[in-house]
Amino acid sequence: MSMMVTRAHVQAMLDVEAALAEAEASLGVIPENAARAIRAAARAETFDASALQADASLAGNIAIPLIRRLTEKVAVADPDAARYVHWGATSQDIIDTALVLQLRDRVPGILQDFVRASNAAAVHAERHAMTPMAGRTWLQQATPITFGLKAAGWVDALDRVGRTLRIAFDGAMVLQFGGASGTLAAFGEHGPAITEALAARLTLAVPALPWHAHRDRLASLACALGVATGTAGTIARDVGLLAQTEVGEAHEAGGDGGGSSSMPHKQNPVRVAIAAAAAVRAPGLVATMIAAMSQEHERALGGWQAEWDTLPELVTVSGDAGRALAELLEGLVVNPERMQANLEAAGGLGLAEAVAMRLAPALGKQEAHARVQRAARQAVDERRAFVDVLAEDPAITAVLDRSSLERTLRPENYLGSSAAFVGNVLARHGKT
Amino acid sequence: MSMMVTRAHVQAMLDVEAALAEAEASLGVIPENAARAIRAAARAETFDASALQADASLAGNIAIPLIRRLTEKVAVADPDAARYVHWGATSQDIIDTALVLQLRDRVPGILQDFVRASNAAAVHAERHAMTPMAGRTWLQQATPITFGLKAAGWVDALDRVGRTLRIAFDGAMVLQFGGASGTLAAFGEHGPAITEALAARLTLAVPALPWHAHRDRLASLACALGVATGTAGTIARDVGLLAQTEVGEAHEAGGDGGGSSSMPHKQNPVRVAIAAAAAVRAPGLVATMIAAMSQEHERALGGWQAEWDTLPELVTVSGDAGRALAELLEGLVVNPERMQANLEAAGGLGLAEAVAMRLAPALGKQEAHARVQRAARQAVDERRAFVDVLAEDPAITAVLDRSSLERTLRPENYLGSSAAFVGNVLARHGKT
Amino acid sequence: MSMMVTRAHVQAMLDVEAALAEAEASLGVIPENAARAIRAAARAETFDASALQADASLAGNIAIPLIRRLTEKVAVADPDAARYVHWGATSQDIIDTALVLQLRDRVPGILQDFVRASNAAAVHAERHAMTPMAGRTWLQQATPITFGLKAAGWVDALDRVGRTLRIAFDGAMVLQFGGASGTLAAFGEHGPAITEALAARLTLAVPALPWHAHRDRLASLACALGVATGTAGTIARDVGLLAQTEVGEAHEAGGDGGGSSSMPHKQNPVRVAIAAAAAVRAPGLVATMIAAMSQEHERALGGWQAEWDTLPELVTVSGDAGRALAELLEGLVVNPERMQANLEAAGGLGLAEAVAMRLAPALGKQEAHARVQRAARQAVDERRAFVDVLAEDPAITAVLDRSSLERTLRPENYLGSSAAFVGNVLARHGKT
Amino acid sequence: MSMMVTRAHVQAMLDVEAALAEAEASLGVIPENAARAIRAAARAETFDASALQADASLAGNIAIPLIRRLTEKVAVADPDAARYVHWGATSQDIIDTALVLQLRDRVPGILQDFVRASNAAAVHAERHAMTPMAGRTWLQQATPITFGLKAAGWVDALDRVGRTLRIAFDGAMVLQFGGASGTLAAFGEHGPAITEALAARLTLAVPALPWHAHRDRLASLACALGVATGTAGTIARDVGLLAQTEVGEAHEAGGDGGGSSSMPHKQNPVRVAIAAAAAVRAPGLVATMIAAMSQEHERALGGWQAEWDTLPELVTVSGDAGRALAELLEGLVVNPERMQANLEAAGGLGLAEAVAMRLAPALGKQEAHARVQRAARQAVDERRAFVDVLAEDPAITAVLDRSSLERTLRPENYLGSSAAFVGNVLARHGKT
Repeated sequence: MSMMVTRAHVQAMLDVEAALAEAEASLGVIPENAARAIRAAARAETFDASALQADASLAGNIAIPLIRRLTEKVAVADPDAARYVHWGATSQDIIDTALVLQLRDRVPGILQDFVRASNAAAVHAERHAMTPMAGRTWLQQATPITFGLKAAGWVDALDRVGRTLRIAFDGAMVLQFGGASGTLAAFGEHGPAITEALAARLTLAVPALPWHAHRDRLASLACALGVATGTAGTIARDVGLLAQTEVGEAHEAGGDGGGSSSMPHKQNPVRVAIAAAAAVRAPGLVATMIAAMSQEHERALGGWQAEWDTLPELVTVSGDAGRALAELLEGLVVNPERMQANLEAAGGLGLAEAVAMRLAPALGKQEAHARVQRAARQAVDERRAFVDVLAEDPAITAVLDRSSLERTLRPENYLGSSAAFVGNVLARHGKT
Repeated sequence: MSMMVTRAHVQAMLDVEAALAEAEASLGVIPENAARAIRAAARAETFDASALQADASLAGNIAIPLIRRLTEKVAVADPDAARYVHWGATSQDIIDTALVLQLRDRVPGILQDFVRASNAAAVHAERHAMTPMAGRTWLQQATPITFGLKAAGWVDALDRVGRTLRIAFDGAMVLQFGGASGTLAAFGEHGPAITEALAARLTLAVPALPWHAHRDRLASLACALGVATGTAGTIARDVGLLAQTEVGEAHEAGGDGGGSSSMPHKQNPVRVAIAAAAAVRAPGLVATMIAAMSQEHERALGGWQAEWDTLPELVTVSGDAGRALAELLEGLVVNPERMQANLEAAGGLGLAEAVAMRLAPALGKQEAHARVQRAARQAVDERRAFVDVLAEDPAITAVLDRSSLERTLRPENYLGSSAAFVGNVLARHGKT
Repeated sequence: MSMMVTRAHVQAMLDVEAALAEAEASLGVIPENAARAIRAAARAETFDASALQADASLAGNIAIPLIRRLTEKVAVADPDAARYVHWGATSQDIIDTALVLQLRDRVPGILQDFVRASNAAAVHAERHAMTPMAGRTWLQQATPITFGLKAAGWVDALDRVGRTLRIAFDGAMVLQFGGASGTLAAFGEHGPAITEALAARLTLAVPALPWHAHRDRLASLACALGVATGTAGTIARDVGLLAQTEVGEAHEAGGDGGGSSSMPHKQNPVRVAIAAAAAVRAPGLVATMIAAMSQEHERALGGWQAEWDTLPELVTVSGDAGRALAELLEGLVVNPERMQANLEAAGGLGLAEAVAMRLAPALGKQEAHARVQRAARQAVDERRAFVDVLAEDPAITAVLDRSSLERTLRPENYLGSSAAFVGNVLARHGKT
Repeated sequence: MSMMVTRAHVQAMLDVEAALAEAEASLGVIPENAARAIRAAARAETFDASALQADASLAGNIAIPLIRRLTEKVAVADPDAARYVHWGATSQDIIDTALVLQLRDRVPGILQDFVRASNAAAVHAERHAMTPMAGRTWLQQATPITFGLKAAGWVDALDRVGRTLRIAFDGAMVLQFGGASGTLAAFGEHGPAITEALAARLTLAVPALPWHAHRDRLASLACALGVATGTAGTIARDVGLLAQTEVGEAHEAGGDGGGSSSMPHKQNPVRVAIAAAAAVRAPGLVATMIAAMSQEHERALGGWQAEWDTLPELVTVSGDAGRALAELLEGLVVNPERMQANLEAAGGLGLAEAVAMRLAPALGKQEAHARVQRAARQAVDERRAFVDVLAEDPAITAVLDRSSLERTLRPENYLGSSAAFVGNVLARHGKT
């Protein structure tokens, strides 16, 4: 089986083997000397990761060749100790616990990047709490918002997916230790004591029982990574849309990257692309982790093996998304002038609802809606100013005179609860 | 767009419209009379769901034709009230909040089915805590376990996915209310107050700000449903494997279902099939919900619409899985005699590890492993009793005489921590 | 199991049962009278689809209750004939063949919609073969293209996915007929002859053997539907981007749909949303069909059942996409003036490559690229005309004087092979 | 962006750059000397793949740093030639065409493995055309089949997915060449001629126009790989089920692999696990490729980048599946004695349909079905021989006496068209 084996992966497995030997020695199951010899040999830099990878393909898993080589190395230093390598454990105990250790190395950095991204968004939310811009729905200009409101939406979502990811991560930091069929039979009655000692040494939680075939903790972590990546992707994609040549309301900070090999003028939004690409990839990887949950009996034939490259890949993809988003939002260049210009270019059509709401008490909601809609379409078709068309309808001017119409069509007069919502978000964010 | 519209769906939307009117009336935004007229008209049985479905396809969403018809109905009773239908809201406010209400109707039943399934598994775990059976890894007999241990693994996993689902469900019970671009601009400064009043009326949580384009709560709920379904599927699939004609250790209780249209002797495991099929479908549906998170700006062009049938479908699939699993485990017929017979038929090979562990202190782990492996293969090839072959190796008998070998090969002597693990699980389960 | 059962579905199953009886009668396996009675009873309008759906849930599949009721109906008219209903077949024969018949009803319409869409795109390609517009990469303006080239890309892709779908569709039009375990044992030696007769009656291909557990034909059809939907989605999404308020280069034809419940001025791109949403949903549905391929032994426990709602759902989704795209492209309103205006608004920056290519023979490619890039960034930063900045660099003007620069910066002078590519596509399209 | 960059990948890109230079030189677009110098420098062993990978992350794609370094290397040998590196192309031209070249290196080997697997299955089909075994549906014994029929099903499916994969592969062997926006504007009118020359040099097909944003060919190839992997997975999973300790009808040939780190007696089905795991992973990867089709305008922001690791990963996964399946089937050990024993152990229950069909002409199908079903359940409940219970029912014995019942219950008398179906498949297979 093709499988990626890195030195960090090898070291994590060796750390588990060494901790296992020490836990066993601490309870008198194996000699102290053996544990010392095993710990001494458990250094990944003396192992050939690519040879292990090749052997794993033949053996069916990476632990088997690793244990064989570890035993050989221990035997060189202390032949007697060699017999205690991997005592009472099964391959999956080592592979799963090593995976948990690797997740512990990597996921907190991802969480941190989501915090960075949220903090950066919070700065934008505060700074631009009153900066009007076009709201956009269905990719059409709608009623105005503030850029602060948009950024506050990012903060709110990022804080939430961060919390969800933290819970899933904590839930996955659990020792795997069960031996061949999950009974720890090789230890007689002493299984729970050794489990406790091993978990303490690795600072992992003790499960109620081994979870060789019940993978929900990992699937839930995969889900949380996927959802966090989805949030990173949708934020990045919005920045990509704002950065369009024709919109130009915000763009990724420059730097060395993002040039085009053919076009000298291009400054490509590289970080947007990274986060957006991650968001395209995450769903399929999450789906694989859920599909892989179907694991037969005490240890699986296929499902477990399907996880091996998938979860690390998802961690990489999510990590790329988090880092790209943090950098993107920290360096985001915001252009309030273009926001204003784009609002004005639409000739006040985005304020049509404002006019209709002012007319509704007098005309009824549907009648008001219909009259304003007619005027809006006429303004577009005849390329005239919306206010001019509105002012021609006596049913409208009976309620709103021209100066009232003009006031109604000013974006800054139709921001509703934008500032309050920004305030809500920043208050909650401050507490996280 | 093809879309499923049920009466329950229509009623949920009408409930939101009515509550909105009442909340607005309570704050003096619209007249009390109007709210009463809207509430009176908001009865789904007077709406034609299939006509709404057809119109939704043209209008782009289901709320638009629903509001049009609601307005017509209100107008018949009270022409003045009609103008206040849907006052200040946008389609998505209604559709999303109605979705939340429907989830509130359906997800607790799913949770309850997972509790039922777990309780049923706990009864098996307790009853069969000491019932030996073959452990199986890679679909091969491995060291023995107890059926209680297997069932305890189910309890542990089911309780965990239940907790995860509960958290995700609670997190999703949030009002959607933002108006056109999420600013509630139609209400001037009064957006937050109306939001509070509306949420109170619907007993939903108040979000920090509208979440039209940030769908992580729904995606997280989808994930939790998917993971729960994955757990249901893996348990069901194990029962399907145990129920194989050649294994026969447990099977689904009979009843009317499960017959074959061609084969009179068949009793098909219908509930297993339902849960297993659900587990095949859930990953793709979860992936869609994560992929759909990419929603542009204030309200999306495509991503939101992709959720409409997907989340209800996933709720249905998960609900099928939960109910099928609860029934399956409540009615599960366990056959300890076949468990014993299958252990014996394998001639003690599953205890090879037990022999090797007893030999290892004297021979070293690798040497012991190699000698036992040789004997195991010889026993298979020559179709002889494992104990007889082992007893021929003087290196083995120097450590374990024949009667020791026989004792070592008894499954009940090599169950390790099975009972302790069952105890751990039942103690935790009792507290949930 | 929750499952959608429509009348068309019921009729398709009844058609298979009736054709089966007739084929058997034609070979003397059952009496002619029985076949006539079965055909007479096989009218879906006399069956209660929702009752069947409820019973299917209990029985494990829809065929079992259908056959029971069909037998009852036949028995009323001809008690002797009732014993020959479903003679020698298994449920899956009926369900799978009925699925094939339903696909035959629906997929050609989808194919036709893709042809319509391609034909509409071809009209745009021809009409706008010389209409310049900004090329856009990474959502940034790049070198110019023509709208005809863009539309030709649509034609090319649509014709290709249409061909692929046609092949997959033809490949799936195969009878399923094997009896309980795929041996047609109930017919002794006569299985192949009855198979031929049945296939001839239903105008379906005869497979080399039954395919109860080998679902690649259906999975391949699902893939082709998914890829076609992906193409529809990417085209629709491009129209959505062109239709943005700030771009305005093309938009969906109006009509009754696409209004906003809150904003009178909005004309939402409803068909874009339908196709884009379909493209979000298709990948997960395709993934489910591939995942469901894992079907045990002669007939599956879970995988088959997972297909039941998934493939029809995918057909619906793809059908929505095809129809929406056909309507979208047939009614697409193209705005060459905005295309020109957007090119001009970018101040010729999209032509930077053109300048660099003209400079490269003299300055070297990298030097030319660097000088033009510097000028482009200066033009942006200082909001000056690109030509003015370029004309200040003596290294540039030594090669290209100002009038040469101006000529070089005209989009219509840098369209390269656009017209030739459009010609290629239209020539191929004409032959399809 | 994290991305895997191998030396083969680098060489493929260099091959494209060198061929591009040569094609351009052959048409006089750049000097012959320059092409020679570029070809001479285009040796991957002189490039540092991991440094390129790091730079790619910053630059946004791998081609940009590759071209920079290639230009530097060319400049050392021939400063004048350096200016012609990558002349008129865009990064995506190089990356996509290099991908096509890599697919051409790898997919034929996968196809070959599927042919090997099919040939191996055909040998089993022919050899065991008359070897009875239990048919199994819903994981329950059903009417008997032959192992040859099962193997013939594998041949039929493998040949079909092989043909589908071949078509998709051929369809993807297409040059990508369009320059910045797909117009080849840098070449004026000469784009088509250079395209032809470049395609000829690389032995790739010439597309009607560049396909930077239309990825259906790659998505279709991904689908075909996914479906082939699905077929490999379902076959492997069946072998895994047959190899269960309690079934034992076939198993993977031994060898060095498949040992257990804890259990000396285990011989794990390693190749089954590889193919089954691949089948779990393929659906998610295919889904990603279809989801990635949504690529904006002339070149994408996210979708393209999502393909980079996904398609190679899918090629690896499919390749693992194909190779594992070929080895599995070539070395498959079949055990006809266990097949016979498992049939007998079920006491003839699998032949219940045979009895019912014999009774049906006299009793009617439903009555016959009901009586046989009752007897079957009684035989199971009372653990008696099926024939004995049947022989107690006078309604049955009125039609079939005991010796007829015994004959009817012999598996070899109820194999139906098994042999004919095997013949069909082998005849078709011989022609492929």
